[in-house]
Amino acid sequence: MSSSRHHSEDLPYVHKVGVPPKQDLLKEFTDTVKETFFADDPLRPFKDQPRSRQFVLGLQSVFPILEWGRDYNLTKLRGDLIAGFTIASLCIPQDIGYAKLANLAPQYGLYSSFVPPLIYAFMGSSRDIAIGPVAVVSLLVGTMLQDVIDPTENEVEYRRLAFTATFFAGITQATLGFFRLGFLIDFLSHAAIVGFMAGAAITIALQQLKGLLGIKKFTRKTDIISVMHSVWSTVHHGWNWETIVIGLSFLAFLLLAKYIGKKNKKLFWVPAIAPLISVILSTFLCISLMLKNMVFKLKGVNPPSLHEIYFTGVYVIKGFKIGVVVGLIALTEAIAIGRTFAAMKGYQLDGNKEMVALGTMNIVGSMTSCYVATGSFSRSAVNNMAGCRTAVSNIVMSCIVLLTLEVITPLFKYTPNAILSSIIISAVLSLIDIQAIVLIWKIDKFDFVACMGALFGVVFASVEIGLLIAISISFIKILLQVTRPRTTILGKLPRTNIYRNIYQYPEAAKVPGILIVRVDSAIYFSNSNYVKERILRWLTDEEEQLKENQLPRIQSLIVEMSPVTEIDTSGIHALEELYKNLQKREVQLNLANPGQVVIDKLHASNFANLIGQDKIFLSVADAVLSYAPKMEDL
Amino acid sequence: MSSSRHHSEDLPYVHKVGVPPKQDLLKEFTDTVKETFFADDPLRPFKDQPRSRQFVLGLQSVFPILEWGRDYNLTKLRGDLIAGFTIASLCIPQDIGYAKLANLAPQYGLYSSFVPPLIYAFMGSSRDIAIGPVAVVSLLVGTMLQDVIDPTENEVEYRRLAFTATFFAGITQATLGFFRLGFLIDFLSHAAIVGFMAGAAITIALQQLKGLLGIKKFTRKTDIISVMHSVWSTVHHGWNWETIVIGLSFLAFLLLAKYIGKKNKKLFWVPAIAPLISVILSTFLCISLMLKNMVFKLKGVNPPSLHEIYFTGVYVIKGFKIGVVVGLIALTEAIAIGRTFAAMKGYQLDGNKEMVALGTMNIVGSMTSCYVATGSFSRSAVNNMAGCRTAVSNIVMSCIVLLTLEVITPLFKYTPNAILSSIIISAVLSLIDIQAIVLIWKIDKFDFVACMGALFGVVFASVEIGLLIAISISFIKILLQVTRPRTTILGKLPRTNIYRNIYQYPEAAKVPGILIVRVDSAIYFSNSNYVKERILRWLTDEEEQLKENQLPRIQSLIVEMSPVTEIDTSGIHALEELYKNLQKREVQLNLANPGQVVIDKLHASNFANLIGQDKIFLSVADAVLSYAPKMEDL
Repeated sequence: MSSSRHHSEDLPYVHKVGVPPKQDLLKEFTDTVKETFFADDPLRPFKDQPRSRQFVLGLQSVFPILEWGRDYNLTKLRGDLIAGFTIASLCIPQDIGYAKLANLAPQYGLYSSFVPPLIYAFMGSSRDIAIGPVAVVSLLVGTMLQDVIDPTENEVEYRRLAFTATFFAGITQATLGFFRLGFLIDFLSHAAIVGFMAGAAITIALQQLKGLLGIKKFTRKTDIISVMHSVWSTVHHGWNWETIVIGLSFLAFLLLAKYIGKKNKKLFWVPAIAPLISVILSTFLCISLMLKNMVFKLKGVNPPSLHEIYFTGVYVIKGFKIGVVVGLIALTEAIAIGRTFAAMKGYQLDGNKEMVALGTMNIVGSMTSCYVATGSFSRSAVNNMAGCRTAVSNIVMSCIVLLTLEVITPLFKYTPNAILSSIIISAVLSLIDIQAIVLIWKIDKFDFVACMGALFGVVFASVEIGLLIAISISFIKILLQVTRPRTTILGKLPRTNIYRNIYQYPEAAKVPGILIVRVDSAIYFSNSNYVKERILRWLTDEEEQLKENQLPRIQSLIVEMSPVTEIDTSGIHALEELYKNLQKREVQLNLANPGQVVIDKLHASNFANLIGQDKIFLSVADAVLSYAPKMEDL
Repeated sequence: MSSSRHHSEDLPYVHKVGVPPKQDLLKEFTDTVKETFFADDPLRPFKDQPRSRQFVLGLQSVFPILEWGRDYNLTKLRGDLIAGFTIASLCIPQDIGYAKLANLAPQYGLYSSFVPPLIYAFMGSSRDIAIGPVAVVSLLVGTMLQDVIDPTENEVEYRRLAFTATFFAGITQATLGFFRLGFLIDFLSHAAIVGFMAGAAITIALQQLKGLLGIKKFTRKTDIISVMHSVWSTVHHGWNWETIVIGLSFLAFLLLAKYIGKKNKKLFWVPAIAPLISVILSTFLCISLMLKNMVFKLKGVNPPSLHEIYFTGVYVIKGFKIGVVVGLIALTEAIAIGRTFAAMKGYQLDGNKEMVALGTMNIVGSMTSCYVATGSFSRSAVNNMAGCRTAVSNIVMSCIVLLTLEVITPLFKYTPNAILSSIIISAVLSLIDIQAIVLIWKIDKFDFVACMGALFGVVFASVEIGLLIAISISFIKILLQVTRPRTTILGKLPRTNIYRNIYQYPEAAKVPGILIVRVDSAIYFSNSNYVKERILRWLTDEEEQLKENQLPRIQSLIVEMSPVTEIDTSGIHALEELYKNLQKREVQLNLANPGQVVIDKLHASNFANLIGQDKIFLSVADAVLSYAPKMEDL
């Protein structure tokens, strides 16, 4: 394998190109399946373990709490207690507001902050995520459900459909995780998520103008044009000035609290506690002012709702469709949060296991009067800042929500809409990540287009259309890159034996009589013809230039194949056509550094013999070397 | 730019990583547009030319005959005459048979071999292609049209729809060419075409059992199950034994002629002339035997048919849809043929210009009673073997078809169906390219799946479904490769300074304390997370192994970026997460040889400063070198 081609002592050592042993077809297939579905090697700890140990490990992998719970101690509990109290105080007012976004009564928001976090604490592996209803998912649930059933006219049916959608959202999430298809959510790019979140935040904020301005008749649509039309058409007779004053002053208070929290990281609890203070203050103000002798309705925890889920009838399919979309979006948000904090704290997160946990929590949630819960960006950040150590902070939060439900839920019916609106506005504003958008613009213009497509799609059309635009643009980008890969000319860097792009390294010098072209992509059917013609165009350009300057003509073309990681039958055909064409032009074709897969296929297709085994080199330097003696003759 | 980092004399020279100057946004955009749509630089000859010359060049680019016609001489004419006569004798019987496949009267096949080749000769740039009706396109036209209109009950309307579809097929082809969208047909991979052609050939051959067995009642469907059911259900009372004997003996004669032509390349005219002999022989036999005193109908050339095209009414949309599909398939076949022969003879073919030529020829054809014509595989091969030199061979063929039309068309009405069936069977058998299928199996198993998907799709379902399967599989392949790129570990080749895949080069040695990982793909949103986790898994695997053998731990991870030709914002995020994770594990992250675009984005996103500019190296060797002193301490 490692014998040198030249035995004479004065020639430098040239290493042979490695031809890997023929791969077993079955092994190749299982390897591909493994990399696609089991890329994270989830069964590694089970290897070479006795049965009983495997059982324990299996139990621990389904319920990670059994693993980290054993190391749990008082120091950790202290952190989790503080964090749990903080996120509880933030989540209670948000839950009420978000439930309104989903067109549900306030208690359903609180219900969704009780059961799902408990389940997640036992099954999830993220230590920082805060589970509960979130703004974007609530908006999505609200708009998609009200297209099917009117929430004011058919309150019960609407709620049943909400549970059905939640059930199927959970099924979707758990299924993806169980069948290890979690990589599918990676198809929603970072840029698309940023744009989508910003668009959703703007849409949600605009929707809150209804509560903030005290408008009674308001459009059902979410696009900016319908909403602004609703707002302006009521300017003279629909705006309630007292509501506006109360709403705006609380909004100012909330934003001020946020600003304080941002300036001084130690005061993270100020913005976290501010919404709850606003709610309590305004609610008791309302009750004492207006409703002195009202009767409080029954309070209590989550009633069972399994019987309310539609398993038959026309609403199953509709609930299923909504569930799939909502489930995927909820998943994307939770996984993004989980990954961010895992990277920050340096632990690994098994995406597929997370999905099973999130799915289970929503399935159980749908049977206990919850709607779709997921990880919340804002509350997870607070959770982290408050010093959470494990998922126990979710249990703490869950217990506080339970207390709230037992004691004061009915009161929240009397929280003024203006206050809820200002809480929602101040919460969603942080979803508009201007810094991230600026960074996307700086890094990648095409990503920016995808981001803006998602943003404007959501704002001007609807949430679904925004999503669709973002995904389409992302895919077009990949396909375009695969269809029109970059090619470039290489030159020799001075004082080295390294060949690099002459446009990136202007000091790199071309070798006379030799043209070195690098192809920057796998060669597939979609680009094979382009690659062939582009290489010929480089050659024609170069030959014209040489002719003008009366320099010796090109005798040898070296294709640097390092970035060509794959080739298919169309690609081999294109190479054959390139070879034939070059033969007519009396230019010798050489390949440098083809990878394992490519060299395998060059041999299988007999192309290696066609151009000659000795025309395939380990590196560009070796290929140039083999022509150097001839060059000296000129 | 080219200053060395180390000034001390005993350290080897290290070249700095090139940071290209910031690109102008507009320039970047126009460059992308240019590479996407004008990859072949069609305006190059127009540059720096006077107006009058530009006009001549423009005229020549639309009508290439003006260019090559000036060098035309008697030697070329001799070759073209022989080739023209040969393909004419082959095309006349085929035309009659293929017209039947399209459910049209025989003369429409001949019409389509008269006008379109003439137009193509003036506008096309391929020298070897033979234009006319072809089997696969005729089958496609026949099956798709008869789904809309019954050809036996509404003959006139059916024919009008055929012209309408032809018109829109031409429009589709010319539009793609004019807007330089020709690259879209590259999305049909070589493997898919091979499978599709083989499937179509089997389907067509099975359809011919009707004529060959003399069955009267036959299914309209094309799938193998319906056809075989039709055949077996008529075995006792529907088969005409005389027809079978005549058909099979002519089929044997044709296959023998083919075999002779294959064995002795000089006798290429034997298989070319055999079908015509069969037709003439059998037709006159029939006429003299059965129809002694019949009256011949009017003969003549293509009647105008512009007024027959549907430009209004329900059939426009249907004709348009069929036209688009048929036009694309016809285009794929013609371009594939054109490219094959261009590569063989070493001339360039402008795909987009070809499309305009093919489109124009079909538009004009639709107005002169022709149905969709394109390049024929079998006749182009014969054309080439007979020594054609230019498109004049198409003109010669066209003239002979004209004579045929003027003299003997009506006779062809009496050609026995069994003869036509045997001609079609012997013609389409060569579309089943077993060698190509075997080669595809050898080179790329996924391509083989696409090929078989197309084949079985066409045979068992329908032509459209076969196409759809092939295209879907091809795209899934690309996406899978982009989602799960290869990664590998590099080692140092003995006696060189080159680092290569240790699985391809088993003699390559790992550097103690350093792990070198190569990522074999651009890093996009769809794979960024996988790439990050896969690199960490390589690290974990390596560390476990080192621990077992009690070797020093990994201090530095080098990511070889040569094949990473692009990165997007998600990719940058993944790198950041990787960096943070490695920091926790006290492993230093280094990048080797990032390309122009990648280094640009690493700087734009500030990631280069995050990991440190001095951690980005020109090559793996340089990166290893910078750790070598530390390594010696161990």
